[in-house]
Amino acid sequence: MYEIGVVYRNIERADREAVDRLRAFGSATVHEVMGRVGLLKPYMRPIYPGAKIAGTAVTVLLQPGDNWMLHVAAEQIHEGDIVVAAITADCTDGYFGDLLATSFKARGARGLVIDAGVRDVRTLAEMGFPVWSRCISSNGTIKATLGSVNVPVVCAGALVNAGDVVVADDDGIVVVPAALASRVADAAKKREDLEADKRAKLAAGVLGLDMYQMREPLAKAGLRYID
Amino acid sequence: MYEIGVVYRNIERADREAVDRLRAFGSATVHEVMGRVGLLKPYMRPIYPGAKIAGTAVTVLLQPGDNWMLHVAAEQIHEGDIVVAAITADCTDGYFGDLLATSFKARGARGLVIDAGVRDVRTLAEMGFPVWSRCISSNGTIKATLGSVNVPVVCAGALVNAGDVVVADDDGIVVVPAALASRVADAAKKREDLEADKRAKLAAGVLGLDMYQMREPLAKAGLRYID
Amino acid sequence: MYEIGVVYRNIERADREAVDRLRAFGSATVHEVMGRVGLLKPYMRPIYPGAKIAGTAVTVLLQPGDNWMLHVAAEQIHEGDIVVAAITADCTDGYFGDLLATSFKARGARGLVIDAGVRDVRTLAEMGFPVWSRCISSNGTIKATLGSVNVPVVCAGALVNAGDVVVADDDGIVVVPAALASRVADAAKKREDLEADKRAKLAAGVLGLDMYQMREPLAKAGLRYID
Amino acid sequence: MYEIGVVYRNIERADREAVDRLRAFGSATVHEVMGRVGLLKPYMRPIYPGAKIAGTAVTVLLQPGDNWMLHVAAEQIHEGDIVVAAITADCTDGYFGDLLATSFKARGARGLVIDAGVRDVRTLAEMGFPVWSRCISSNGTIKATLGSVNVPVVCAGALVNAGDVVVADDDGIVVVPAALASRVADAAKKREDLEADKRAKLAAGVLGLDMYQMREPLAKAGLRYID
Amino acid sequence: MYEIGVVYRNIERADREAVDRLRAFGSATVHEVMGRVGLLKPYMRPIYPGAKIAGTAVTVLLQPGDNWMLHVAAEQIHEGDIVVAAITADCTDGYFGDLLATSFKARGARGLVIDAGVRDVRTLAEMGFPVWSRCISSNGTIKATLGSVNVPVVCAGALVNAGDVVVADDDGIVVVPAALASRVADAAKKREDLEADKRAKLAAGVLGLDMYQMREPLAKAGLRYID
Amino acid sequence: MYEIGVVYRNIERADREAVDRLRAFGSATVHEVMGRVGLLKPYMRPIYPGAKIAGTAVTVLLQPGDNWMLHVAAEQIHEGDIVVAAITADCTDGYFGDLLATSFKARGARGLVIDAGVRDVRTLAEMGFPVWSRCISSNGTIKATLGSVNVPVVCAGALVNAGDVVVADDDGIVVVPAALASRVADAAKKREDLEADKRAKLAAGVLGLDMYQMREPLAKAGLRYID
Repeated sequence: MYEIGVVYRNIERADREAVDRLRAFGSATVHEVMGRVGLLKPYMRPIYPGAKIAGTAVTVLLQPGDNWMLHVAAEQIHEGDIVVAAITADCTDGYFGDLLATSFKARGARGLVIDAGVRDVRTLAEMGFPVWSRCISSNGTIKATLGSVNVPVVCAGALVNAGDVVVADDDGIVVVPAALASRVADAAKKREDLEADKRAKLAAGVLGLDMYQMREPLAKAGLRYID
Repeated sequence: MYEIGVVYRNIERADREAVDRLRAFGSATVHEVMGRVGLLKPYMRPIYPGAKIAGTAVTVLLQPGDNWMLHVAAEQIHEGDIVVAAITADCTDGYFGDLLATSFKARGARGLVIDAGVRDVRTLAEMGFPVWSRCISSNGTIKATLGSVNVPVVCAGALVNAGDVVVADDDGIVVVPAALASRVADAAKKREDLEADKRAKLAAGVLGLDMYQMREPLAKAGLRYID
Repeated sequence: MYEIGVVYRNIERADREAVDRLRAFGSATVHEVMGRVGLLKPYMRPIYPGAKIAGTAVTVLLQPGDNWMLHVAAEQIHEGDIVVAAITADCTDGYFGDLLATSFKARGARGLVIDAGVRDVRTLAEMGFPVWSRCISSNGTIKATLGSVNVPVVCAGALVNAGDVVVADDDGIVVVPAALASRVADAAKKREDLEADKRAKLAAGVLGLDMYQMREPLAKAGLRYID
Repeated sequence: MYEIGVVYRNIERADREAVDRLRAFGSATVHEVMGRVGLLKPYMRPIYPGAKIAGTAVTVLLQPGDNWMLHVAAEQIHEGDIVVAAITADCTDGYFGDLLATSFKARGARGLVIDAGVRDVRTLAEMGFPVWSRCISSNGTIKATLGSVNVPVVCAGALVNAGDVVVADDDGIVVVPAALASRVADAAKKREDLEADKRAKLAAGVLGLDMYQMREPLAKAGLRYID
Repeated sequence: MYEIGVVYRNIERADREAVDRLRAFGSATVHEVMGRVGLLKPYMRPIYPGAKIAGTAVTVLLQPGDNWMLHVAAEQIHEGDIVVAAITADCTDGYFGDLLATSFKARGARGLVIDAGVRDVRTLAEMGFPVWSRCISSNGTIKATLGSVNVPVVCAGALVNAGDVVVADDDGIVVVPAALASRVADAAKKREDLEADKRAKLAAGVLGLDMYQMREPLAKAGLRYID
Repeated sequence: MYEIGVVYRNIERADREAVDRLRAFGSATVHEVMGRVGLLKPYMRPIYPGAKIAGTAVTVLLQPGDNWMLHVAAEQIHEGDIVVAAITADCTDGYFGDLLATSFKARGARGLVIDAGVRDVRTLAEMGFPVWSRCISSNGTIKATLGSVNVPVVCAGALVNAGDVVVADDDGIVVVPAALASRVADAAKKREDLEADKRAKLAAGVLGLDMYQMREPLAKAGLRYID
């Protein structure tokens, strides 16, 4: 599956308007309407709370302890992209810091998702450049071995193709195939409209048991109440 | 031990006044005076810093990837309760989000302790609904299989009976059997009174070695100083 | 390697001026100029964000579930020290809380690095006493078995000798041998001066590919661009 | 819940005949007929493959790094017991070796289940004394702090009461409340009789889809076949 | 990427002769000649040592705690296939036991690779049905929610398409895209021929330093020998 | 502490006769008489059961994903050495396989201890070349960056100096400083003599409670028996 040593320059990015709509819904709603697929593992955490972004994926495949390809990836970034970096083996090194963030930001990147470590996290927070990572580590990397850019990658357990939509917030990161972006955004809108109404009812003390009409199926499943 | 498919409606809750006194002492002091038992594993973390609560446990036993029983539990919540949710197998799914939180809050719950994942954490923080969980995850759940409510559960390594006192803060979560609540609160008060005095001495530069009279037992144990 | 039951009273501390210069550079830069050695494992995390300290190590070797030697260590603290605590076996107990912090602070300690748990973390944050630890836990400890103070210890995978420089911030913790402190600070200064210039260029949109002249070595390594 | 410093001498052991019947079924079948409860976490592994035992629990609560109470427990062992040891905090020390095994065996114990480390594993295998543990470690322990014997304990996530049936094999460990032993053994027998027939059909090439009549419910759930 | 609720019946399997050649080389050599890609995470372990298989992938996407689709997958197995099962969320339940193994074997499956737990491991070993899994667990599963068969899945960090070659042995599991099977087998043959010669030289005491002519590049990189 | 890019050729090896005596006692006894220090973390496991070795350490410091220095180390091996390999960052790659084992064996090495992965484990078992490692992985490594040989290293949490004694068996790995080898062997002999007698008594049914005269200290500590 992986090709090593290649950079795809022309990738088909998801529709920008759909991307921006997806951002508003957040990762939990988007994941739900996708049928509960496309989520990165929950060990991926934001380096500071409160960031909420969506963008189109520029994918990078990196070698352990080697961040050379992040420099190659920088050139492929368009305004509105999110860089998604996978490593060919588990690694906790700090691949990314404030210099690369400065470059990525200047190129228009909205953030980074990396299945490894990052550093300079305080400066990144001050810059407002959001990163979701496996860990935080001062441990720098070398630049010696080729990987690839814009090939399909498996990042934290999820397949990401270049151009896919990445939605990331405090709850996690979800990937939407580029071709499905608009459809998923529509479904998310519908779901959210329904939720507003439910929230009001629940806040007023209505029970989910009644609102979702669960009492009958629970009884059928055999639930017994004991006083 | 576990019964599946039952809901105990009448549980004996710990004395409210004792609960509120225990809250003030925090999990570390309470755990200490209990004889260092009753603590949930330290992998349980608050979703936002600074929350400090105590309440009476409504326990829930859930199936992996299935949050049906949280809706059943909502109906059993009294003002001042904390829901304590255990799963029959390890699971990182996001069982709980802002809709359920709205419902729990409307019922009078003070918070949730769950040995699994939660989502909508930013909204939960804005609502001021505190949660201690194993992880954070966008991954939603289904509603298909029965568990139980208010049966004894093992949550993050600790046995919790319905009605027990749960004390949770940034240091962790400790469970106090309902019958011991007042006695533990008294002991905690005593310990804390002693600590205030110690704190002042230590701040003035007195060494614990002298204050606790440790020099002699250390010498007896064979401690050698080398210049 | 380890001696049990001894306290070295006279340790050679790294040069204070070098220590303070190293603080400014932070753990990532210092680790980099050391040749990427001396870093503690990334599972060590600060109990609150934003702390950035450097100091000279007072080392402590502790037994599992036993914090007796932290009291012995308090007496050996000089103004400007950081206590570095290792355990003879993996342990998540809460060895350190606000009372010991009050004492350490009164003695002039700048912080604590401990390969185990801590508690009273909210109070520690309010006191401004920074701690880097393996975890947070209410679980207290006993005072029954000897360890040592100011012997060489392995803390979170790194060898620390008493008197070494410890640099700790949001990115992690790095140890600089006392004898190398000035030399490392000089190297860090040089590196940082270079980085300021690079940052400006990257912010202006210059690519690392060009700034670091990577295009030729990448081509030599066989990188192919596909349109 | 936990009492520290007590030894219950008179415990009600599960019926011996039921215990021995349960042994034959193994942990997977017993867990299944219990309604999928009572299993210890899967990180518990046998120190050598092929052991398959059942017995009545003598429970021990131990302090971290301290195996004193295992000696106290030895005296409480009856022929046919299995010692189940929990620790008040996570610990990987080697609490148990060939000397204690010699003693336990002489007292009639069938094995040990311990949520910590063991050592002398090769000798234990040669002795045929089976142990299920969290890990293997040479790290010895001290004898300084009290725990308890035959109090209810949480071991690897499961509540165990003294006298309960413990069934352990290569698949894991399951606990059956003493009062349910016979009933569970009957249910296991019934399940196993059914399985023998199913096994023959499956071996002959009959599909589970047909044998369990799953085709209709799968179609109803919406399963689509694509050629 | 994932489709839920579909079964692809016609998949293109890799060339059988290439599959059987790849088996002989083992996972390490195949992974090496692939350019070090396609490996499943090393937490995947065989349930018994010594198995060494290669086959064509029948992929299954399962829901947490639910093994329904393994029954659906059984019907899609051809002689020489290996079933590769991924779960939509992390799960340690025991999805697979001796009944399913009997069925899979009757259908011609060579083994199972599953990113979750299995049970009846002793019986599986006696049957000679090899399984690589994340863990071993008695914990059974339900049959309630649809997944898919023969869709692309991410299993233990690697993308697997139906029909791909799976090579599994004591060192791990590697996936070879169906289209590359012959080419990879040829490259592996070439590599192995070279290794036989090297092995003889090394056994005779020739150093890798000389055989691989490393002395010059090491000196260039700055290696210093100190007597 | 670490020097990068150096090879120390003349190291002081522990006394051979002491090394061989230590082998017989095994890691648990040696660790015990050392005062419970010097043990590598229990995540280090033998790749096959039953190996029991002792030897003098040739230390290697490796970079993540790079096994170049293992070839450099091969030349420094003397008859009776054990290679101890540490990595500058956590890494699960397979650094070592049958070719290097052939070379190490030809040079007289008794085994390998490596805080990373190994591969070709079946062949290594057939060759009788024992390895203790963090994991098993097919993932190969590159040869691009310098490390060091025979510098002090921290391997799996323990400091190892070149020439130290390494004792490894099924229970784990312990390091004895070269200068202490004879003294530790004497102490181990003494301990073992005592144990033989104790074993006989315990086998005869004498309780540790009586043999170690624990009843009085237990009573003093407050142990209560409840009938």
